[in-house]
Order: sequence, then C-alpha cells, then structure tokens
Amino acid sequence: MSLVVVGSVAYDGVETPHGRVERMLGGAATYISLAASFFTRPRLVGIVGEDFADEDTQLLLKHGVDLEGLERVPGKTFFWAGKYSEDMNDRETLQTDLNVFADFDPKIPSSYRAARYLLLGNIQPALQRSVRAQMNGLRLAGGDTMNYWIKDFREELLETIAQWDFLLINDGEARMLSGESNLRKAAGAILEMGPHTLVIKRGEHGAMLFRRDSFFIVPGYLLEDVFDPTGAGDCFAGGFIGYLAEQGFDLEAGHISRGDLSRAVIYGSVMGSFCCERFGVERFRTLTRSEIDARFEEFRKFTSF
Amino acid sequence: MSLVVVGSVAYDGVETPHGRVERMLGGAATYISLAASFFTRPRLVGIVGEDFADEDTQLLLKHGVDLEGLERVPGKTFFWAGKYSEDMNDRETLQTDLNVFADFDPKIPSSYRAARYLLLGNIQPALQRSVRAQMNGLRLAGGDTMNYWIKDFREELLETIAQWDFLLINDGEARMLSGESNLRKAAGAILEMGPHTLVIKRGEHGAMLFRRDSFFIVPGYLLEDVFDPTGAGDCFAGGFIGYLAEQGFDLEAGHISRGDLSRAVIYGSVMGSFCCERFGVERFRTLTRSEIDARFEEFRKFTSF
Repeated sequence: MSLVVVGSVAYDGVETPHGRVERMLGGAATYISLAASFFTRPRLVGIVGEDFADEDTQLLLKHGVDLEGLERVPGKTFFWAGKYSEDMNDRETLQTDLNVFADFDPKIPSSYRAARYLLLGNIQPALQRSVRAQMNGLRLAGGDTMNYWIKDFREELLETIAQWDFLLINDGEARMLSGESNLRKAAGAILEMGPHTLVIKRGEHGAMLFRRDSFFIVPGYLLEDVFDPTGAGDCFAGGFIGYLAEQGFDLEAGHISRGDLSRAVIYGSVMGSFCCERFGVERFRTLTRSEIDARFEEFRKFTSF
Repeated sequence: MSLVVVGSVAYDGVETPHGRVERMLGGAATYISLAASFFTRPRLVGIVGEDFADEDTQLLLKHGVDLEGLERVPGKTFFWAGKYSEDMNDRETLQTDLNVFADFDPKIPSSYRAARYLLLGNIQPALQRSVRAQMNGLRLAGGDTMNYWIKDFREELLETIAQWDFLLINDGEARMLSGESNLRKAAGAILEMGPHTLVIKRGEHGAMLFRRDSFFIVPGYLLEDVFDPTGAGDCFAGGFIGYLAEQGFDLEAGHISRGDLSRAVIYGSVMGSFCCERFGVERFRTLTRSEIDARFEEFRKFTSF
C-alpha cells in the first residue's frame, strides 16, 4: 500500500577506513526510499538544487520511487561530509552546507495525500507535524528524530510524536528523550509520550522493538566488512516501513501484531546490513529481493535455538 | 555428568551506582560453581586462606558444590576491590591482594580425575594446562582467559587453548587474541587455534557462538536494574557448562550439535542476567530452577519472529 517518505536528499562526502568518496548521493529520504522500494512504491517528498544530477534522478526512478514530491529549486543541494573512526562506531562531521534544504517546507502533492503509510525522516519537528496534517488517510505514521531536536526543541518534538504510531531512534536518543539510562525504563517512558511502538536502533548491536505489553530484540547482522555505515539507520527505517506497507496491515482492523512488527524489524536490519556493504547507495544498484529474503532467513537461522 | 571447575575463590569489595559492599564472597570458581550447581554437581578446585568464612563454605555445600579440591592454607584469601562507572560498562580496580592465590598450584583430587567436563577459570595458562594433564576421562574441556595472558603470555596461552574444545572470552579479548577487529574474522582466526567452539561474551549486548560451519547470536537480557555485574561472565560460563554437563552430551559419539550449544549459550545468558540482579552471589541464595527455566522461555519469546 502507498507510502510517503519525507526528509533530506543530499550529497555526502565520506571517509571510512576502507576509502574515501568526495561526493555521492545521500540523505535520509534517499536511503529510506531506496530501501523501501524493494517492498513498495515510495513517494518521496524532499528538496534539491540545480546541481542534482540526472543520473541520481534516474537511479531513484529506476527503483520505482515517485518523485512528484521532490522539489527542484535554484541553488545547491544539501551537502554533508564526515569521517568515521577506525572501528566505525563514531564519526566526525567535517562539513554541513544546508543550501536549499535550509528553506525546506514540505508540500505534499495532492496525489500523495491519501497514502496509508508515512515515514518522516529526521527534520524539524514542526515540519514533521505540518506533513502529518496534510495527510488524510493515514493508517500508520511515524519517524525519526535526533539529539539536536530532543535537546533544544523538546516541547515541539513531544507535540509531534504524540501523534505518531511509531518512533524509530537510536539508544542514545532514547536515553536522552526519556531521561532514563536503562533502556527498558527509557522505552516505558517513551511509550507514555504517544507512540504505541518504539524501535530502538543499536547499530552493530542490532535493534529492539517495544510495545506496552511486549518487546522483541534482534542482534546485529555480522558483516565481514563494514565499508560505510552512512545511511544504515535510514535503510533500517525503509525496510521496516516498506515491509509493513507491502503487507498492507490495517491498523483500524487491528491487524498489526507483535509478530508483524518483529518481521518488519528483521527486514529493517536486513536493509541496514546491505547498506553497509558498499559506499553510499551503491549496494542498492545490484541488490535483489531474493537476496533480501535469503538474508531474512539467515537472521532466523542464527537467532534460533 | 561430572564437572570440575578450577579458578579463584575470593573476597570482593564492590561499589556500583546502587551501593557498596566492603567484603563479600567472590572469585571466578565461586561464581562458575554456583551457577553450574543448578544443573549438575560441580567439583571445585581452588585455594583459600584461614579467613575463609564458614558461612561461605556452607553456602557452597548447600548448593551441592564438592569442596574436596578447595585447599585451605595459612594466610589470607585473595581479595579484590573495584568500582563501576555510572553505566556499569567500565570498572576501575581499586585493590588486588593475591594473598594465598599467588602460590595456587591446582592439585586435582583423585576422585575428580575421571570427570567428563572441565571448566578452567581465568588463571595462568600453564596452570590451566597442568590441570588438563591431570584429567583422564574428559569429553569436553575449555575455559576463560584475559588480556594480561593474551598480551604477555601469548605462546603459553596458545599452547594451552590448542588442547581445548571451547574458549569463552569477551569481544575485546577475541580482538586482541586474533588481531582482527571484525568479530567474524576474529572468530575464524581463533577457531584455527584449536577450539572447535568459541563463545564471545558481549556483556549487555549478549553473546555469540562460533563453530567452523555456523554461528549463533543472542542479544542480552534486558534487566530493569543492574545492581552489580561482578561475576556475570563467570555465571555465564557456569550456566553454559552446567547445562551441557546436565544433558550429558557425549562428544565422542558426536552428540553435541549447534542446537545443544545454542541452548547452553541461552542458559549461560540466563545465569549471567540473574547474577546482576543483586550484589555478589546474593541472587543465588533464593534462585530456583523453575525461575531459570522461565527466563529461558522468556529468551525464546523476545527473540522469536
């Protein structure tokens, strides 16, 4: 069923212990949409400048991403550059040029407004709320945020996530948002803020899913080589929402269960792991659905006892 | 079937964010034996001084731990004191008095020598090897080590673990021993050193089991309160070997499978998690086998999809 993805479309410069790329396609909405495109047809809402390359447009179109909501305006596309530590668990931002993204005010095309699924990438909480308000047939809505909004825009963020079904954040953000260092307590506090489902991403250590009455934990996939972790969290989000949209779970009919959500967390983990195998979005150029389903089965194999 | 446990018996002084205990029963062999005692009857080999309290002897005996191999000599029992960081992922050693443990030269009572299972706690590799040589009916032998032996006694350690069926270490030790930062590669390198089974403990992030042709990963149990992580890794070892000894898997008959070992890893995780719920060995005073089996089922529930 129909999915709308909102967030940054960018160019990234990335240095990891495996090498360096000066400029490559990136941005949360790009990664989310590409990952979700293996399950459903995402409709992207974002903004780019005149420098946005035709080959990048073509890559997204080739994956079935609807670009009616991708604004093209005078100026340059958002650019970010960063360098990863030796173990790739930390990264240092070297450059952030917001460019046209500084004035991003997401306008949802009328053809998108009746979509059932909404994934809000990490942007200003007020903008996330304005998107939510433009939609009129949502069954499942949620998204990501980051430490900056949690710390300096707390009230706005709380008002925003109060309307969400799910929140997808990392462990540090969950601790900061809740004020609890223990993740089980942190999750309990966050589920009081509105969302009925909380997904905590833990990078190489996997992910956790919390609902009021249950939780689910999956370890991270054990890659032999992590080339570039950029976008892995967004690909997780894309796999998670993509699978749910593909299955067409209907919240109003009460069809969404812990089992459904757990499998969505596995597909999220699968997409995040593929993302790390090459620089940027490279892995998605050749990835197939059968490779995705094979890795899903691998998760079942190495976690069963 | 019969299990011999070798290692330190000590007194510990511990400070965590939840409180402070000046002196309490501790030591690797103590934790391993107590955890294993819920599955089998461990035979302990260790050394204590004249100050070793009768109530501590009674606690071990009450749990069915055979103490024929616990030497009592003039002098004081090994004492260690440490303080944990706020998140309890790090600890600082405040005091280490080896006392009678400095001259520990494990002598295996004749009644222990035909035991089928051997768990060697973290002691000098040459001593671990001398214990192995005193045993004459082993089916499954292995143990723990630490950064100190890996760094400064490498050749001796390699000679020792070459004779082991399994090695139980943490992720940092696996990286140091193999020289590989990637855990999958590290495991591959370590399995070339002799053991057919490698268990990597990752604290709150769970544990991994590697064999040549397969691997298994389990996330950590999500405790609401970690009171004191002291001994958790040793309790993991005790649950792991205790379950295998209870089941009586017979390596020579080829009865040990990945499934058997995976369930042993879960019982290890269960015992490690209980250990953290109270200071020192306190939790084991009231713990029951039915609580252990219930938590095993909890692991199945929160990891299934």
